Amino acid sequence: MKILLSNDDGYQAPGIIALYEAIKDLGDVEVVAPEHNNSAKSNALTLYAPLSVRQANNGFRYVNGTPADCVHVALTGLLGYRPDLVVSGINNGANMGDDTIYSGTVGAAMEGYLFGIPAIAFSQTQKGWAHIESAARKARELVQHLVGAGAPESSPWLLNVNIPNLAYEELKPFQVCRLGRRHAAEKVISQTSPHGETMYWIGGAGPAKDGAEGTDFHATAQGHVSITPLKVDLTDHEALRAWGRSVPGAREAAGA
Amino acid sequence: MKILLSNDDGYQAPGIIALYEAIKDLGDVEVVAPEHNNSAKSNALTLYAPLSVRQANNGFRYVNGTPADCVHVALTGLLGYRPDLVVSGINNGANMGDDTIYSGTVGAAMEGYLFGIPAIAFSQTQKGWAHIESAARKARELVQHLVGAGAPESSPWLLNVNIPNLAYEELKPFQVCRLGRRHAAEKVISQTSPHGETMYWIGGAGPAKDGAEGTDFHATAQGHVSITPLKVDLTDHEALRAWGRSVPGAREAAGA
Amino acid sequence: MKILLSNDDGYQAPGIIALYEAIKDLGDVEVVAPEHNNSAKSNALTLYAPLSVRQANNGFRYVNGTPADCVHVALTGLLGYRPDLVVSGINNGANMGDDTIYSGTVGAAMEGYLFGIPAIAFSQTQKGWAHIESAARKARELVQHLVGAGAPESSPWLLNVNIPNLAYEELKPFQVCRLGRRHAAEKVISQTSPHGETMYWIGGAGPAKDGAEGTDFHATAQGHVSITPLKVDLTDHEALRAWGRSVPGAREAAGA
Amino acid sequence: MKILLSNDDGYQAPGIIALYEAIKDLGDVEVVAPEHNNSAKSNALTLYAPLSVRQANNGFRYVNGTPADCVHVALTGLLGYRPDLVVSGINNGANMGDDTIYSGTVGAAMEGYLFGIPAIAFSQTQKGWAHIESAARKARELVQHLVGAGAPESSPWLLNVNIPNLAYEELKPFQVCRLGRRHAAEKVISQTSPHGETMYWIGGAGPAKDGAEGTDFHATAQGHVSITPLKVDLTDHEALRAWGRSVPGAREAAGA
Repeated sequence: MKILLSNDDGYQAPGIIALYEAIKDLGDVEVVAPEHNNSAKSNALTLYAPLSVRQANNGFRYVNGTPADCVHVALTGLLGYRPDLVVSGINNGANMGDDTIYSGTVGAAMEGYLFGIPAIAFSQTQKGWAHIESAARKARELVQHLVGAGAPESSPWLLNVNIPNLAYEELKPFQVCRLGRRHAAEKVISQTSPHGETMYWIGGAGPAKDGAEGTDFHATAQGHVSITPLKVDLTDHEALRAWGRSVPGAREAAGA
Repeated sequence: MKILLSNDDGYQAPGIIALYEAIKDLGDVEVVAPEHNNSAKSNALTLYAPLSVRQANNGFRYVNGTPADCVHVALTGLLGYRPDLVVSGINNGANMGDDTIYSGTVGAAMEGYLFGIPAIAFSQTQKGWAHIESAARKARELVQHLVGAGAPESSPWLLNVNIPNLAYEELKPFQVCRLGRRHAAEKVISQTSPHGETMYWIGGAGPAKDGAEGTDFHATAQGHVSITPLKVDLTDHEALRAWGRSVPGAREAAGA
Repeated sequence: MKILLSNDDGYQAPGIIALYEAIKDLGDVEVVAPEHNNSAKSNALTLYAPLSVRQANNGFRYVNGTPADCVHVALTGLLGYRPDLVVSGINNGANMGDDTIYSGTVGAAMEGYLFGIPAIAFSQTQKGWAHIESAARKARELVQHLVGAGAPESSPWLLNVNIPNLAYEELKPFQVCRLGRRHAAEKVISQTSPHGETMYWIGGAGPAKDGAEGTDFHATAQGHVSITPLKVDLTDHEALRAWGRSVPGAREAAGA
Repeated sequence: MKILLSNDDGYQAPGIIALYEAIKDLGDVEVVAPEHNNSAKSNALTLYAPLSVRQANNGFRYVNGTPADCVHVALTGLLGYRPDLVVSGINNGANMGDDTIYSGTVGAAMEGYLFGIPAIAFSQTQKGWAHIESAARKARELVQHLVGAGAPESSPWLLNVNIPNLAYEELKPFQVCRLGRRHAAEKVISQTSPHGETMYWIGGAGPAKDGAEGTDFHATAQGHVSITPLKVDLTDHEALRAWGRSVPGAREAAGA
């Protein structure tokens, strides 16, 4: 069992160190992770600059690029073999609902999935690393189950897992959920530099808009570890017909 | 009719200039675009550095950030009003099939959509800007139709449009398509720096894997302008049940 | 007469545009300048990343590097010939006294000088580009004189020129000066990011400490255009003997 | 005795770690060093972006800026006290002759000197860290002598020290030298990116042009540890008169 481990907080983050320690005996685990914090880097790839790979004292390799860069470079040449599983995280903060589309943690896992390799993204629901050992232990349980033939037959698959920051004993069972929805993000935050220039900071995520039962927001709020299977088909299949009718001269393509 | 225009190739790219010229009389069009090429930056947001906004001589504003940053900052404070439409492009090269998830052009449009605003991403299928005026004219036709009550009632919506690099007369009608699929990307490209360090470059996208009738690959290969309605729900709803059964101790959340 | 023109404010800055217009008929003038503001980049070279050179619509070439990078790349391969003169500026603000060691404007000129080519750095004493046309006209006068055999015989030479922001008629004659001295820089400026991190900004330069008659500070305060010939020998020759005596077991090298 | 330690190779480099270990018992030694390799960054300061300071597990603080930024921020607010000595290095490679003007190692020390604090820059003459412990031991001897009232009375002073990569027993005594001169740098190195863009790399330094007896080049080639006292007065005093005569309408300022 060969496992590629990455994240978006950077190779020195407590989350990836704890996860590495928790799963390292489940197979051959190699770490290729970003040099720096790459939160919210989504699936971004670095096309127009070369990437460097370096190795830290603990054997982790790090890349001056994004989470998706790390997995991409690992899978297309750096590793020299094809891993059986790509694991990403544990992230410093939730990746639930609409946030998922921005998440570098999910982006790293999704890159593996797009190469046909099963992948899991792990996040803690609160920032600050409280109970990170507990989260790592829970993550290990899921990985151990899945590498032991416990996964559904259809492959590859992509899981997004969010773990409440609770002591291990307080964590409730895994719950399979859909992604919730958030309200729009908060206002941009302005500061003025000492040179008199306005600087803008991206504001916080909005509050949950759909946090109903069945969502990741709801499950984790109850203390469950949420598991959401993801797919990467952005097509709005249900809307194809309506659009075929609404654009003049257009038609829905046969077979769409 | 207020239109926000962005892209991922940067505010100086021929594609955004042509598109601006083509649609500027359809409403109040404001440009907020990246300072530099941001190809493949997906939905990435810049959380941990401040952003600056500057204005070029032609009135375009540019941001030292990603396409999604541009739209985000515009919508959460910079514009001071809520636009009716977000338009992105015209991109230098195709954004079809699996590429869509990496596209900064789509990322800019998707950011508008996530704020509840209808949005369109335009791309030319080949790099190099051949027939960009033709593409801009076609883009104008679609925008004009949609701002004139031609859109389906459900709102917001998000369209991904790819235009073959053909003379206007050779372009075939719009065709509403699903996204195709690609094979995995090509191998990473290695170079050695003069200092003896290995540098890695992300390789090219793979060839079409599913380019069957009904896909954007197929439509544009025939000379059609492809329109794919997108949605942003990554949940693999069909897999929820199977996963609920497969993880020990887990269950599918009620309401998922 | 072949002239290489660079600066540190970037190829789009009013100072380099005005200077180019003022001197372009004095010879073959080529611009290779930084893409972005590189104030205070001193003599910095970019050793561990590759540089790109692009061309703007007006024919100026720009580099994603420092002022010294621009001149270095131009002289070691990009130009394909050896220019007779390197000119840098006109800078947005003074480069006098101790500031000179930090100046990217001077850094660009010094790079030419280190390659054995005469070089001049021009700066306006106040930021904001007031009377930039006047400064450019004055700069042209000096360049015209020097390219017309008006320079001292010893070559190469390196001049640091500071021009008060005054109307042309109000500018007093050139004055050959030594560099003054400044008091230590002001305190660092702290801000807190929205994420709670402390950010530090380098503070302003200190006030003049030695602005006596004979210095660039004094000359420009009187309305003169200061000219300071520079050399690049950091050795403190006068201190060699004392140090030879003070370090145990050491001796001053014969011939030092 | 309070000592500020910095470098240009980054806080994780073997040179600064060895130097810290060697001198840490000579006083209160604090490290504020760049996060990344900043070779050839000269005296560059970061004026238009905020700097962050972080702390590594070993207590070293690191800054996302240049060597001069590190010392500047430390001295103008971060430390909260005024150190008695600024030490920089040990650098990975020589900083002799004309290279000195580009050196980030010297830039860090010079920043201390410009604030009125005695400063020393240490470099090994060959890259690769061979005999780094030997160099650190030699550096300690010099620091210990100087903090023990062994320095000349005039203060501040600035020393540039280059240590051959030799076993301790093979190192010959300190020798006080002037800076030598180099021939112009080598040609720029071109590569073509996979996208077809030409990339330029700054080439190597030129060979010694003046490596005569009395220079740092000569001393270190003989196995001596070279010490060169530096000053920061770029004025070419001897040329003032000639320039005063050569520029029409100009005169040498009284007192220059």
